[in-house]
Amino acid sequence: MADPRFFAVAGPFGLGQLADLAEARLADGADPNAEFTDVAPLETAGPGNVSFLDNKRYVDAFRVSRAGACVVHPSVAPEAPAGMLLLLTDKPYRGYARIAQAFYPRLGRADSTIHPTATVDPKAVLGKQCRVEAGAVIGAGAEIGSGCRIGPNAVIGEGVVLGEDCVVGACASLSHCLVGSRVVIYPGVRIGQDGFGFAMDAAGHEKVPQLGRVIVHDDVEIGANTTIDRGSGPDTVIGAGCMIDNLVQIGHNVQLGRGCVVVAQAGIAGSTRLEDFVIVAAQAGVIGHVTIGRGARLAAQCGVMRNVAPGENVGGSPAMPLRQFMRQVATLARLAKRTEV
Amino acid sequence: MADPRFFAVAGPFGLGQLADLAEARLADGADPNAEFTDVAPLETAGPGNVSFLDNKRYVDAFRVSRAGACVVHPSVAPEAPAGMLLLLTDKPYRGYARIAQAFYPRLGRADSTIHPTATVDPKAVLGKQCRVEAGAVIGAGAEIGSGCRIGPNAVIGEGVVLGEDCVVGACASLSHCLVGSRVVIYPGVRIGQDGFGFAMDAAGHEKVPQLGRVIVHDDVEIGANTTIDRGSGPDTVIGAGCMIDNLVQIGHNVQLGRGCVVVAQAGIAGSTRLEDFVIVAAQAGVIGHVTIGRGARLAAQCGVMRNVAPGENVGGSPAMPLRQFMRQVATLARLAKRTEV
Amino acid sequence: MADPRFFAVAGPFGLGQLADLAEARLADGADPNAEFTDVAPLETAGPGNVSFLDNKRYVDAFRVSRAGACVVHPSVAPEAPAGMLLLLTDKPYRGYARIAQAFYPRLGRADSTIHPTATVDPKAVLGKQCRVEAGAVIGAGAEIGSGCRIGPNAVIGEGVVLGEDCVVGACASLSHCLVGSRVVIYPGVRIGQDGFGFAMDAAGHEKVPQLGRVIVHDDVEIGANTTIDRGSGPDTVIGAGCMIDNLVQIGHNVQLGRGCVVVAQAGIAGSTRLEDFVIVAAQAGVIGHVTIGRGARLAAQCGVMRNVAPGENVGGSPAMPLRQFMRQVATLARLAKRTEV
Repeated sequence: MADPRFFAVAGPFGLGQLADLAEARLADGADPNAEFTDVAPLETAGPGNVSFLDNKRYVDAFRVSRAGACVVHPSVAPEAPAGMLLLLTDKPYRGYARIAQAFYPRLGRADSTIHPTATVDPKAVLGKQCRVEAGAVIGAGAEIGSGCRIGPNAVIGEGVVLGEDCVVGACASLSHCLVGSRVVIYPGVRIGQDGFGFAMDAAGHEKVPQLGRVIVHDDVEIGANTTIDRGSGPDTVIGAGCMIDNLVQIGHNVQLGRGCVVVAQAGIAGSTRLEDFVIVAAQAGVIGHVTIGRGARLAAQCGVMRNVAPGENVGGSPAMPLRQFMRQVATLARLAKRTEV
Repeated sequence: MADPRFFAVAGPFGLGQLADLAEARLADGADPNAEFTDVAPLETAGPGNVSFLDNKRYVDAFRVSRAGACVVHPSVAPEAPAGMLLLLTDKPYRGYARIAQAFYPRLGRADSTIHPTATVDPKAVLGKQCRVEAGAVIGAGAEIGSGCRIGPNAVIGEGVVLGEDCVVGACASLSHCLVGSRVVIYPGVRIGQDGFGFAMDAAGHEKVPQLGRVIVHDDVEIGANTTIDRGSGPDTVIGAGCMIDNLVQIGHNVQLGRGCVVVAQAGIAGSTRLEDFVIVAAQAGVIGHVTIGRGARLAAQCGVMRNVAPGENVGGSPAMPLRQFMRQVATLARLAKRTEV
Repeated sequence: MADPRFFAVAGPFGLGQLADLAEARLADGADPNAEFTDVAPLETAGPGNVSFLDNKRYVDAFRVSRAGACVVHPSVAPEAPAGMLLLLTDKPYRGYARIAQAFYPRLGRADSTIHPTATVDPKAVLGKQCRVEAGAVIGAGAEIGSGCRIGPNAVIGEGVVLGEDCVVGACASLSHCLVGSRVVIYPGVRIGQDGFGFAMDAAGHEKVPQLGRVIVHDDVEIGANTTIDRGSGPDTVIGAGCMIDNLVQIGHNVQLGRGCVVVAQAGIAGSTRLEDFVIVAAQAGVIGHVTIGRGARLAAQCGVMRNVAPGENVGGSPAMPLRQFMRQVATLARLAKRTEV
């Protein structure tokens, strides 16, 4: 069970109720009234716990797990140990997510509290039920929607707008940005600073004023120590539902569509546009001024130097269609092996 | 026009005056007394705005722009829409930079203010017209030059020296460093912490005390969440006019010459030296203990394992002359295609 | 000598005493009673200084150094300038580390001080001789061991446990973690935030509650702006004596064994396990759910997509045995050259 120093568990819940949340169906013989008190990984789960199997690497752990119930794909149901109750769904990870959210719900709104060491400018406007932690700073003209939580030592710059129920992590800083609702900004995030815009010149690089903003739509998560520069004139835009991991760089004027996923340490250079549901894997980079089509997938460490078509999968640096990249990798391996003899 | 919540526009300015600032000449028929109230991107500019065209990708937007005036290279002047007044220069981006700086000048000095929640050690020395924001901390023996602005929750360590008119962003931290004038340090920057120096040993890695400093010369910009370690005995040195982007890593004892450009997520390992005007593109890496010659260009994602000659362009990992890298890329593509059949 | 604004030097020490610390033997004729006042790099050392030579690149500097004494490998002793006293050891860098630690010892414990601007929750527990700097925030239920130093504007979340003599740098933030003793956390580090766990879904990515912790064992160093996510259910674990550089990403559920070294900007994806003494060079990446065997070395910028055997050296992206990678690099160079003609 999760460490009670850090987590409070809800429940118990009946299996039928959990199946509804997971949009799963109960396998034959699973009692919908059986009660469960917590979620747990396959290895450590006990009879009162619900677990899940999503990645085939862990089938062995599934076979011997003592979990009382488990969310699984129907195809692996036959591997289940005797007595385990099964919740069957085509999307077991999503199903587990819903169940775990029930046991560990997000912090609800509480009464408004502004810590005495926080600094809230008299010209800032805070909605109802906001919580401002120790040392946080909110500048003049900022508008903070109801239910927002501003973490310790976070800084909300002048004129920044947050929608409702946003979370800003410890030591994060925001400026020049308009943020939607239910946005989660992790510790150490930097949003809205100047983009990297200057005219290179041997007599001294000439700084170009960065006159745009960062627009973050609803339901976005932005990982720890990630940096998102504001636009140079146009805005930098993060579409609704985007999931951005840690240490990501988003350059000025970049536009992310809805539901994009950008994994750790990836970088998107200035003025590039990602359409909806693009996936950028870890440590990948995309050059400036290109368009990545809807649903495209950029493999880890790839270096994209051109437009990518909708649905295309690319890899390598410079990036190319993923199958072509894999073929090149195989070709080079074969050629090198031949010369070895 | 820029969002007035975040930006205040100066002006209006006459076209002749703007041409002087841009070091541009007016195209035939452009009235030097025509007045302009703002800058704007090609797509959104109106009759009262000055725009620019620097990247050929945007010629189409130029052809249909409603901008009243535009800074352009003479070669694209014939593409201008009817009625647009042109400022002609070989360096349109630089010209635009100067004009935009006039409309949106840097914050000038103001009266000294130390926010009541800031902590300034009695043994710190502040020059005239410094602004210390909420929650900032300035340690004993620090010397802050006139006109500096220390952002909210930033930390200036003991003994740190800043020249005049520096800006330190929110939540940045400096220690063990001497910084010149007009240096801009973005939010979350880390300067002066221990370098990554230890003797590896299975019985326990042995930490090597890091006894140098970070020396930052005048007119440098250091991007958000970038890290610059102090020297191990020699100093880490950032030359005048360097432009460093976000999430860059600069190891101990690294020396950057004047005017170097280091793009986001690049890293320079310990004791490597960059001569003047080197360009390190995004996500590139340079091994320790090598020298990169004046004006060399390191391509995005390259991995430099050796000295690079002045003016050389390199790419690939391990890095090689860029043309050689491009040829290798083409060769492998051809060979893989052949085997496909 | 190190800048007295930032460093206080101990000593002087006799050469014999230094040889003992370095586990070195004095070369013939080196007087064990000769006194030394400081350490210094070869280039700037004078007669009262001890220096070292570890990297053969610097033999030329060694030959003309004015250092009074030098820690060297016996094999280079014949290159020493006349009059230089030598401390001979197979591990000169380690020997120098010990000597430099004597001249510049770590800050000892001092009386407990909690800066008046710090916020320590009444339900937090602090050991003896802790120092809490300006603006630091310590949450309810946190337990801070004796001798810890919490830097300016750092944030220690609710329930976090630190052992003895830890150092937490400026503006770092910790949550959901249990940390051992003598751990050094650099400025801007983020520990314990949510891992990047969600079920991807076009109808909206479904967040998976992250219910584990980060466990950091004794004698670990974690570099500036590095991010370590907490586990999703299992814990994220950093083994004793690990050295982690700046801007590193450690995903949820990752386990590092003892004495691992992870260099700047490298990233380890979720649920991957590193056994003891693995070395991950700069900008390398490791995919999730794999195991890297004891003592393996992952070259800079490599991309590891599979398990790596103990002691194996790998390079390239996708990574392969390092010799194979070097052969492929040579093969491609040769093939491209041939087609050039």
